Amino acid sequence: MGKRKTIVMKFGGTSVGTIERIRVVAQRVKVEVERGHRVAVVVSAMSGVTNRMVGYCAELDTLADPREYDAVVASGEQVTSGLVAIALQKIGVPARSFQGWQIPLRTDDAHGKASIESVDGAALERSLLGDVVPVIAGFQGIGPDQRIATLGRGGSDTSAVAVAAAIKADRCDIYTDVDGIYTTDPRIVQRAKRLDRITYEEMLELASVGAKVLQTRSVGLAMRENVRVRVLSSFAETDDESGSLVVNEDELVEKELVAGIAYSRDEAKISVRRIPDRPGIAAAIFGPLAAANINVDMIVQSVGADSLNNMTFTVGLTDVEAACAVLDRERGDIEWGEIQTSRNVTKISVVGVGMRSNAGLAAVMFRTLAERGINVQVISTSEIKISVLIDAEYTELAVRALHTAYGLDKIEEPNT
Amino acid sequence: MGKRKTIVMKFGGTSVGTIERIRVVAQRVKVEVERGHRVAVVVSAMSGVTNRMVGYCAELDTLADPREYDAVVASGEQVTSGLVAIALQKIGVPARSFQGWQIPLRTDDAHGKASIESVDGAALERSLLGDVVPVIAGFQGIGPDQRIATLGRGGSDTSAVAVAAAIKADRCDIYTDVDGIYTTDPRIVQRAKRLDRITYEEMLELASVGAKVLQTRSVGLAMRENVRVRVLSSFAETDDESGSLVVNEDELVEKELVAGIAYSRDEAKISVRRIPDRPGIAAAIFGPLAAANINVDMIVQSVGADSLNNMTFTVGLTDVEAACAVLDRERGDIEWGEIQTSRNVTKISVVGVGMRSNAGLAAVMFRTLAERGINVQVISTSEIKISVLIDAEYTELAVRALHTAYGLDKIEEPNT
Repeated sequence: MGKRKTIVMKFGGTSVGTIERIRVVAQRVKVEVERGHRVAVVVSAMSGVTNRMVGYCAELDTLADPREYDAVVASGEQVTSGLVAIALQKIGVPARSFQGWQIPLRTDDAHGKASIESVDGAALERSLLGDVVPVIAGFQGIGPDQRIATLGRGGSDTSAVAVAAAIKADRCDIYTDVDGIYTTDPRIVQRAKRLDRITYEEMLELASVGAKVLQTRSVGLAMRENVRVRVLSSFAETDDESGSLVVNEDELVEKELVAGIAYSRDEAKISVRRIPDRPGIAAAIFGPLAAANINVDMIVQSVGADSLNNMTFTVGLTDVEAACAVLDRERGDIEWGEIQTSRNVTKISVVGVGMRSNAGLAAVMFRTLAERGINVQVISTSEIKISVLIDAEYTELAVRALHTAYGLDKIEEPNT
Repeated sequence: MGKRKTIVMKFGGTSVGTIERIRVVAQRVKVEVERGHRVAVVVSAMSGVTNRMVGYCAELDTLADPREYDAVVASGEQVTSGLVAIALQKIGVPARSFQGWQIPLRTDDAHGKASIESVDGAALERSLLGDVVPVIAGFQGIGPDQRIATLGRGGSDTSAVAVAAAIKADRCDIYTDVDGIYTTDPRIVQRAKRLDRITYEEMLELASVGAKVLQTRSVGLAMRENVRVRVLSSFAETDDESGSLVVNEDELVEKELVAGIAYSRDEAKISVRRIPDRPGIAAAIFGPLAAANINVDMIVQSVGADSLNNMTFTVGLTDVEAACAVLDRERGDIEWGEIQTSRNVTKISVVGVGMRSNAGLAAVMFRTLAERGINVQVISTSEIKISVLIDAEYTELAVRALHTAYGLDKIEEPNT
């Protein structure tokens, strides 16, 4: 018999949404325990509970004290941790719940959206050594003020990765309502493939452009702490090969040039037109936007027929009005002639570690889109990603065409 | 200006049952703060929440691990404490929530029905000195295993009294759905009077015979720690004179001979007939019952016509079958001839510290009942209580007659 593996199993809100589902979760944990693994479990609140708690707080005060908000909202995970422990004990698996403060999982003092500062693995490891499954309330820790702090939405993924790092787990399994990470959205491309493996960097780029399977922060933490993360379905039978594994680049078996095609409809385009061509003009525009906490993504500068400049960039859909207000206020300084906005845009991104070494991959994108008559409005690139902004009408067409062009289409199994 | 008073205000589940009710609670606390008092608040779970949590646990395992049960169930008070703190802040009253483990309120390890071992008043007093209202999650503490422990049903009253003792509060106000303690059940006797003051001992006797306004344990603790407890309505306007004050006997202004008439329909009578008259027969009967954890209350021994003895006693309604099973098993030892049981009985109790010095008070009871043709089946007495067991049919008649006989009827205000 080989060395026993230590794995973390994380279950989200829908996976523990009812008592019946909690029983199913307990059975899944039992299976892993019976395979000889040491298992730690991380749970979210039962689906709907967090929203109810947030609603209570907002009903009393939309600007509720975040420390009190945290005490209220963290109760959801507390309940699930106890219930899952009971369900495990009932089927003969020794288990006990751990609240954030009992581990302790320490956070900074940014209540309501705290970051994890440290996870003490000692108590969890004692539990694992005694073959008692620790069932950890996700999404929560204890702040420097010794009060309950929550990590913000999606924080349970981050809890799971942080716990996995603390107990040096061989793997962190994230059970969700999808069965893995796909080359693109299967609702748009029927022949989208599930990826067996994907790198942290690719996952980060995919998450940041709308493929929200894992919370971005959790992927970043996994990369830094070198935690192997697996995404798999909590609604289907699974084994050691199920789902998608997020790993270091050197763990990729076959290095695909492109991992996937992502899209995001959450952005809007703003064009600041007829601005003088002088040094410091970009700072005059983007400095005040940054100061107003408005995130600017893609940027392109162009010269018009009148030899005045245009600056075009994207912001989040919800930030358009705030951005225009900032630009109005700064008009004296920027001396712009006109502002145009468009909400009717989609950002399409091709992501893959192969981009680093293969310059021709960008050309494939532009050629493919041009062949379909799709106009590229803005372009931005990172080391492993090319993104273009196009008219939203062409979203599905563009995603399908690119998926095929990069050779990502699933090969149909012949009927037998 | 006199010295500032410190008061504890405790609100039960119906008082904090909705967000709207929580706002009302916050207003009440604000009134006391504006009177110049230092206020600590103790809260129960929103009504219905504890039952839902208990239901979840039972659905998974009727014998759920009490440590996990506690983690689940204690979440209800956690939520209320945060919400009440938010509601207070919203109306300009600085406040913060305290969970049991944050105080810390330490308990023994009897999870699910723990007893309070100590309350550290330091953190609460710091909060009070800074004029920040501590809002304490009732019903919970932290056990010697550093895990959440609940005090059992009604435990929030006990939390409030223990907190009041720890911070040396001048008074512990228990807000409930009644406006005080009455001379008897107002549903039976319209002319029942609210008592301005009652002694701890009287309150204990009344609580133990069915007038369940305060949890017995909380009254016992208040007596030991000399905490002045006030019971008042959370649904009516109140001032410093509202409700009923539970105090030491020497604080009674006018010592009424009798404080009230209580009744209990929760008992059953068991007669063990035709038992030999020999030493040790009582031990042979009551020893095995005690060993089976069956609580025996009133006891009377009588001699029948056949010069054999009869032993008659009462047990809780739910214990009748278990008690008969024990007696069957011990028949060889007890040598009884017959067992009769009756569930159709009521225990009526007259309670008052005046009993100590006034032997004639018992005679009033027997005469009053005899005049109405009510047969007394069993009698028991304590220092400040006389109880009789009667046919349940006569309950209302007996309570009304005794209420009048002891001069407890409210004098009607003349119409003006």
